Amino acid sequence: MTEARVGGTVRIVGSGLLGASVGLGLRAHGVDVVVTDASRTAARLAVEYGAGRPPAETDAPALIVVAVPPDAIAEVVAAELAAFPDAIVTDVASVKSAPLAELAASGADLSRYVGSHPLAGRERGGPISARADLFLGRPWVVCTRSELGRARVSAVEALALDLGAIPVEMDAAVHDESVALVSHTPQLVSTLMARRLGGATDAALGLAGGGVRDVTRIASSDPALWVQILSANAATVASILRAYRGDLDEVIGALENIDEPGSRRSLAETLAGGNAGVARLPGKHGQDRRFASVVVLIDDRPGQLGRLFAELGELGVNIEDFRMEHSPGAQIGIAELAVVPEVLARTVEDLTARGWRIAG
Amino acid sequence: MTEARVGGTVRIVGSGLLGASVGLGLRAHGVDVVVTDASRTAARLAVEYGAGRPPAETDAPALIVVAVPPDAIAEVVAAELAAFPDAIVTDVASVKSAPLAELAASGADLSRYVGSHPLAGRERGGPISARADLFLGRPWVVCTRSELGRARVSAVEALALDLGAIPVEMDAAVHDESVALVSHTPQLVSTLMARRLGGATDAALGLAGGGVRDVTRIASSDPALWVQILSANAATVASILRAYRGDLDEVIGALENIDEPGSRRSLAETLAGGNAGVARLPGKHGQDRRFASVVVLIDDRPGQLGRLFAELGELGVNIEDFRMEHSPGAQIGIAELAVVPEVLARTVEDLTARGWRIAG
Repeated sequence: MTEARVGGTVRIVGSGLLGASVGLGLRAHGVDVVVTDASRTAARLAVEYGAGRPPAETDAPALIVVAVPPDAIAEVVAAELAAFPDAIVTDVASVKSAPLAELAASGADLSRYVGSHPLAGRERGGPISARADLFLGRPWVVCTRSELGRARVSAVEALALDLGAIPVEMDAAVHDESVALVSHTPQLVSTLMARRLGGATDAALGLAGGGVRDVTRIASSDPALWVQILSANAATVASILRAYRGDLDEVIGALENIDEPGSRRSLAETLAGGNAGVARLPGKHGQDRRFASVVVLIDDRPGQLGRLFAELGELGVNIEDFRMEHSPGAQIGIAELAVVPEVLARTVEDLTARGWRIAG
Repeated sequence: MTEARVGGTVRIVGSGLLGASVGLGLRAHGVDVVVTDASRTAARLAVEYGAGRPPAETDAPALIVVAVPPDAIAEVVAAELAAFPDAIVTDVASVKSAPLAELAASGADLSRYVGSHPLAGRERGGPISARADLFLGRPWVVCTRSELGRARVSAVEALALDLGAIPVEMDAAVHDESVALVSHTPQLVSTLMARRLGGATDAALGLAGGGVRDVTRIASSDPALWVQILSANAATVASILRAYRGDLDEVIGALENIDEPGSRRSLAETLAGGNAGVARLPGKHGQDRRFASVVVLIDDRPGQLGRLFAELGELGVNIEDFRMEHSPGAQIGIAELAVVPEVLARTVEDLTARGWRIAG
């Protein structure tokens, strides 16, 4: 057990996926964790899962983590600040400016509030989905403000570090603009595309490939949660969507007048702009130019992927990214491996020699 | 070697990714394949790669496969129909109505033309990316028309079957409407989202997670090819985009007036519509409700994925889908496995017992 950076008792308000995961992660370091929830059932479940203990009269938490839905953040944070006048209070909501403004308007003691946002979570919610490792390797935004002392910011960064996350200091407004662009707008773009599939014929859906599946995957997210997120960042998201609509209008105009001079060039420039935009995303991913791709055909039965990866391990090939795809009705899967270009030729050759079918 | 369904010599015009892959696949069945290209270099390369032999004066192909860019289809098909009056001619372009109309206008002998479209391909082009297995398990649309005899349609279906694809008969207009919805519109939606990232700050991009990456992955596609595809299906794509814009306007309106009655409800309905749309996509994929998900943490070094899959093989667990993700700067990868719900608990338990860290 590694010693925790956070000191004293940590009180968690809201025992859903995020709250219970924070509790599990801190308990793994031996921290005294109190877990509570407006729903007694949820609170009891989180305690049973080992996320912490029930509150006691004598509790004097040093740090309070508010992990309730975005709509309830300001009210709950204000109540916690008032109830525990010595505690630092943070929250983990995915919007930061609106709750802060609401808190300020309520006259709460903001000097002890440090908003934060771990970029983690899954589509499934509730304490039963919670994991101590949920935040491992993820960015955890900690919202700095000029009036906040370093010690208070550090207390929340200690929490992030204890949970294996990477603290990223950011102003609340900058945070909200950032997630509006890289999270909230993509959510709506995906949702609106998926909505068009509602009226599709089965014949059309039968031709769906990996592209449309990727574009619409996050459209399966929870509407109730997303209404709260989008409502709390409405103006910023609307402004990005207006710019998106401007580009969309240009594309529609070009398509409607495709034989006019300039239309094809306008489409080409839009597509090239997309190339440039996606190339800016950091990290190890499919479109990353640093990696080459090998496509291996896999029979749809147990152990085949195991054999493939065991052999790649024997060959000493590090897999940078991996993607699997099935065509409906096919007894074969397509596994796309990303490797550094230096080992591409050798990987293809060695896998072929071992009897794997490499596709284009 | 399995005996081929196609009979006689097959002539392939255009030795890029698709043409050369058709050649390689047919050569694997021992079919006599002639391969040609407007570029002598490309043709020679395809021959060297084993996709076929160069043309000879005495060639009398039974089937001709035109695999040139969409813009050139009609002209090349017309030339082939005229040069080989006994051959059936097909093409593999991803748009079907415009080339057909252009051909009809040119006075070509349409009774021997059967358009087709294999739903296969990769971002990379050229004969060096070609693979005999490119079409395995993929749908291959064969465009029927009332005046076409069954024998001519069957000849193209035999080609698809020889290459391991699944023939799907469809009217050209229905094909174009279908791919407008499941391929061309998602391409533009993804491109337009990616374009917004062009002006993003590094701080914002650092918060990018799996969602925006999925939405924008296909935005890295080749602009030159896509201008041709979109131009040849412009009216249909424009009409879907106008409906998309209608929904987008509603979302922007709701966000701009988020405190007005009905705005949140409108957002919720849009998000629920996205849920319903994405649920209609067939096949084995992340959002598929038939599968449960297990997230395993993987150290970023060779052999780890191999060990994981080897052990899953030993446990007899079939992996239905797989997705891998890295956070920037993290020395750890996150592998998400999809399994049938029946084996979920056992898989988590057995992997944990073997020392794997399972995340939420």
